[in-house]
Amino acid sequence: MSKKKPLILVCNDDGINAPGIRALVDVMKELGEVVVVAPDSPQSGMGHAITITKPLRLYSSNVFGEDIPSYQCSGTPADCVKLAVDKVLHRKPDLLVSGINHGSNSSINVIYSGTMSAAVEGAIEGITAVGFSLLDFNYNADFEASKNIVRTIAKNVIKYGLPEDVLLNVNIPAVKSSDIKGIKICRQARANWVEEFDERQDPYERKYYWLTGKFINMDKGEDTDEWALKHNFVSVVPVQFDLTAHHAIGTLNQWDL
Amino acid sequence: MSKKKPLILVCNDDGINAPGIRALVDVMKELGEVVVVAPDSPQSGMGHAITITKPLRLYSSNVFGEDIPSYQCSGTPADCVKLAVDKVLHRKPDLLVSGINHGSNSSINVIYSGTMSAAVEGAIEGITAVGFSLLDFNYNADFEASKNIVRTIAKNVIKYGLPEDVLLNVNIPAVKSSDIKGIKICRQARANWVEEFDERQDPYERKYYWLTGKFINMDKGEDTDEWALKHNFVSVVPVQFDLTAHHAIGTLNQWDL
Repeated sequence: MSKKKPLILVCNDDGINAPGIRALVDVMKELGEVVVVAPDSPQSGMGHAITITKPLRLYSSNVFGEDIPSYQCSGTPADCVKLAVDKVLHRKPDLLVSGINHGSNSSINVIYSGTMSAAVEGAIEGITAVGFSLLDFNYNADFEASKNIVRTIAKNVIKYGLPEDVLLNVNIPAVKSSDIKGIKICRQARANWVEEFDERQDPYERKYYWLTGKFINMDKGEDTDEWALKHNFVSVVPVQFDLTAHHAIGTLNQWDL
Repeated sequence: MSKKKPLILVCNDDGINAPGIRALVDVMKELGEVVVVAPDSPQSGMGHAITITKPLRLYSSNVFGEDIPSYQCSGTPADCVKLAVDKVLHRKPDLLVSGINHGSNSSINVIYSGTMSAAVEGAIEGITAVGFSLLDFNYNADFEASKNIVRTIAKNVIKYGLPEDVLLNVNIPAVKSSDIKGIKICRQARANWVEEFDERQDPYERKYYWLTGKFINMDKGEDTDEWALKHNFVSVVPVQFDLTAHHAIGTLNQWDL
């Protein structure tokens, strides 16, 4: 990156008023010129959704004071990135950071995560991108330790850049700074959610269901994000958007097609 | 798979009333015992969204006649799969097929696709899963050629199974059967959408935006899905949900962390 202050786009999925994005903006304004484009309401679990069946709204906001241009968008995190590039910045930012998410986006959660979808959308468009999450769902979670981690990782990203078509998924254990053992480069653990829908009846005697689930980590590896987080390390997983299972191509070529 | 008729779950993202899912059900009922759980309204572009901020509804439907148990769900394609496993089938199906999507899910579209998210959700849960798409957005598209392709691929999947943690993304060119050159195992092309928002003004003089975009394929490889489709081959891409960019781990381990 050039010696000029980098242009940093900040996004999230918990919405522009979430404390997590405030912590992220606090660190980013030390490192570059910051612009925020974030959803006007929480978008957790939105995966890589984009909005094509209704129009989008984009309004200027003063949530971060007059020095930080900020916009709230009626769409998903991926929509925010697209609108930011085309209609707010009119160019690609030098860095896109998303978060700090309230809750984990480790292992399989990367697939369901709105926070990560903003970062993935950036990477698809050729933007250096990182998603940050703190393993604490609490609205009033303490982001102080996270800020130090965010600063360290963002400085490295600005200094070294990222490999082509790779973004980062950073998860931070919910412990105080002095208890964090370090930062580990990891692979995504093989884990999944076993759904357990909570079945209820509405006042009109019709059934409805709340999605709940149990998280199952079947991966015993010590090089995974789940292992790192369980042992109080910050996990950094390099993520790609080429979903091809290259190793399976040979097997499939033996089929009767 | 056992010699018993396989239990086949059919899902999509265009909604239970779309012609594409009807074509898929027509073929699947030749091959096994079919149950349909599909969204009650179109869910295109929903990516891997799940519904966690509102409850879900699930109603029995008679769209496919009395012999095919069918349900429409108020949620996303991924929600449909989760609800089907937990509340309809009470077990994992032997095969999950999603589609036939009205429109392409080749290359980067796999990330935005609701059709593919249903198949990905299945694979995460250990279910053999395939997503099918026809490169024709038209509601009245002709699915006759697609049915032959679906039959051939589904028979192979039932006969050989799929490698662990791998699902298939099948795209079918919109040409008549006799013009299809064959079925090719491919990798996902490196391509993306360059967004071009259409800015308008509502009757109250407030701006709004429609997401539009231009598809850019920068991949010259002849082993990609885009190449295959352009040359009238059906593309079959093996897809994985481990998003780790394993090749980048070494580089990141040299950082100042």
